[in-house]
Amino acid sequence: MKGCPFGSHRVIEPKGSLPQAAQRIDNTPRISDNEILIDVQTLNVDSASFTQIKGVCGDSEEAVAAMITDIVRSRGKLQNPVTGSGGMLIGRVAEIGSLLKGRGLETGDRIATLVSLSLTPLMIERIEKIHMDKDQVDIRGKAILFESGIYARLPEDMPDRLALAILDVAGAPAQVDRLVKPGMNVAIIGAGGKSGLLCCYQAKKKVGAGGRVIAVEYSPENADRLSRMGLADHTIVADATRPLEVYGKVKEVTGEALCDVVINNVNVQVTEMSSILITRDGGIVYFFSMATSFARAALGAEGVGKDITMIVGNGYTRGHASLALNILRESAVIRELFERLYV
Amino acid sequence: MKGCPFGSHRVIEPKGSLPQAAQRIDNTPRISDNEILIDVQTLNVDSASFTQIKGVCGDSEEAVAAMITDIVRSRGKLQNPVTGSGGMLIGRVAEIGSLLKGRGLETGDRIATLVSLSLTPLMIERIEKIHMDKDQVDIRGKAILFESGIYARLPEDMPDRLALAILDVAGAPAQVDRLVKPGMNVAIIGAGGKSGLLCCYQAKKKVGAGGRVIAVEYSPENADRLSRMGLADHTIVADATRPLEVYGKVKEVTGEALCDVVINNVNVQVTEMSSILITRDGGIVYFFSMATSFARAALGAEGVGKDITMIVGNGYTRGHASLALNILRESAVIRELFERLYV
Ligand SMILES: NC(=O)c1ccc[n+]([C@@H]2O[C@H](COP(=O)([O-])OP(=O)(O)OC[C@H]3O[C@@H](n4cnc5c(N)ncnc54)[C@H](OP(=O)(O)O)[C@@H]3O)[C@@H](O)[C@H]2O)c1
Ligand SMILES: NC(=O)c1ccc[n+]([C@@H]2O[C@H](COP(=O)([O-])OP(=O)(O)OC[C@H]3O[C@@H](n4cnc5c(N)ncnc54)[C@H](OP(=O)(O)O)[C@@H]3O)[C@@H](O)[C@H]2O)c1
Repeated sequence: MKGCPFGSHRVIEPKGSLPQAAQRIDNTPRISDNEILIDVQTLNVDSASFTQIKGVCGDSEEAVAAMITDIVRSRGKLQNPVTGSGGMLIGRVAEIGSLLKGRGLETGDRIATLVSLSLTPLMIERIEKIHMDKDQVDIRGKAILFESGIYARLPEDMPDRLALAILDVAGAPAQVDRLVKPGMNVAIIGAGGKSGLLCCYQAKKKVGAGGRVIAVEYSPENADRLSRMGLADHTIVADATRPLEVYGKVKEVTGEALCDVVINNVNVQVTEMSSILITRDGGIVYFFSMATSFARAALGAEGVGKDITMIVGNGYTRGHASLALNILRESAVIRELFERLYV
Repeated sequence: MKGCPFGSHRVIEPKGSLPQAAQRIDNTPRISDNEILIDVQTLNVDSASFTQIKGVCGDSEEAVAAMITDIVRSRGKLQNPVTGSGGMLIGRVAEIGSLLKGRGLETGDRIATLVSLSLTPLMIERIEKIHMDKDQVDIRGKAILFESGIYARLPEDMPDRLALAILDVAGAPAQVDRLVKPGMNVAIIGAGGKSGLLCCYQAKKKVGAGGRVIAVEYSPENADRLSRMGLADHTIVADATRPLEVYGKVKEVTGEALCDVVINNVNVQVTEMSSILITRDGGIVYFFSMATSFARAALGAEGVGKDITMIVGNGYTRGHASLALNILRESAVIRELFERLYV
């Protein structure tokens, strides 16, 4: 039997929707001819979702385990009911539907799914361990990948947890690679975080000697770490929720030219206006942050008469997984830091 | 005295924010040297906001008037506390700050503001009339335009209400003009509405004989009207909240090629996935609809492995006002319909 390539055949309610918008999907671990069955090893819970869960559970590992089990039991997928977000997983291919055979994937291969857990059928048999500080959960269980679902083979030259952490945000540096050209002024807001550091690296590589990478970071410690890593030409310490402060400090660096491309990687709300103000007329803002408000961005740019292109951070860009993993191979300082933080 | 070009000097709370994000701004009708004072004639309330207000007030004109007065009294601007949106206004220039003189605008000129009412200082002296079916409110009052605020002179060759209705959505056809190229397949979702019709017209003009404009419209009556107006090559009747239905019907027209550019002009939620599915890999979705959810768009595209560019509908594009008004001069069928609906 062949299912819908987007997985609509597993939607229980509401009918007519796709798995991501669905309230509840069928997580039966029996695949149709165009699905892939995965033995799950570790879940990487989306940062916004895990923060919300920990908030409710008061840092108790048992309560977190119970809440995750509960979500998956009632929805058939790990989609946080409050944030709507999911995360991703790593595991081993258990079975490949007949229609997807011979496409380069074999049973036993170790992969990371690159589609959100918010739409991935998941069945948890047992929770093995919760890594409270890494947003990761080791489990025994099964997941299903639809025909349209994307995945990456896990690399042999780095720990799984490291690959998992990187792959979660792989879309961001890949978009930087696409949008940034030699000689540009590029600002990265939330530059000291996981996706921010990868974006700084890729932007530095693309702008070349004639361009400039301006890192905007909230905490003085992380800004200092960033400077020492040599990943930006200028590091600005500022609160991205205060647009005039950010605007003033960026103008000290760029003058009236402002930035050609701005990448927003923060994890807090109301930072749209900072991004907009520091972008030059005709420039581009790439909102990778899931805390972005569509209306605030749309009305905000109009409100200051800025003719700029604002892009929604699509988590998928062709080649994003290998591009992001390659950064770890190229940059010893980033690898060293990320091993410390995420492994 | 010179104020902040973005109007931050009028923010009462929270300090550090800009007028759009502010809870409350100072609407005192005394201008600084880089502001413009306007004698307001009519407010065009954003469709989402007016619908919400009418919902609460149960279609009573008096209650609507009281609610609008109340919002403006407490916030210093007409920003709907629920939807966050505003609208725009037309009026006559009452006074020009000394630093903005000699830039082509004169006292007495009739203009429409092109920045949202959600950030425009407004003082209502009296509500003259509420046009319940046109989302418009005639008032006596004053408004302030900041230095960064944009406006358009009201045209002499059409009724004010018509110009006001068109200018409200001028950003959409201007973006179509920028994104659409000859020979493309272009879909307009919500094609039968105000912005949808303007987008169809502009798309038809740009794709030329080798391209196709596909209109997706909800109600059979409006779809029929659209077909008779000759503004699309194909008209599809479908519910944009049902992605597989829309996908199937668009594929009947385009085959596997799908659409190069998709413009979303609907006024209801959960239509992101329809827009994403009908876009070809490498194509563009332009979300003009203010009912767009950032997270649903970002996770939705990733979920089906679509490497597409999704753009936030910036209300401002250079030259958008004259482009939109010119459509009314060029197209007799659109002008005739809009005169009937909005004047
Ligand atoms: N679009 C997608 O597909 C996708 C996929 C994955 C993740 N995301 C989103 O991407 C964002 C970043 O993820 P991540 O894993 O890189 O997060 P992260 O490592 O937690 O980094 C967040 C960064 O934002 C900074 N920040 C916080 N508040 C700030 C403020 N007021 N001003 C300036 N900077 C501030 C943090 O600085 P401090 O460390 O100094 O606090 C940190 O550098 C999140 O919103 C996440 O949801 C999107
Ligand atoms: N980004 C910006 O700066 C900006 C500025 C102004 C307005 N907007 C937004 O743009 C959108 C359109 O505004 P407008 O004035 O053109 O609105 P409108 O005239 O009310 O048109 C809305 C259209 O959406 C259609 N629609 C509703 N539900 C649908 C469904 N389930 N499937 C398919 N089509 C459906 C309607 O069809 P029926 O008539 O058959 O119901 C109608 O054709 C609104 O969301 C508005 O907030 C954005």
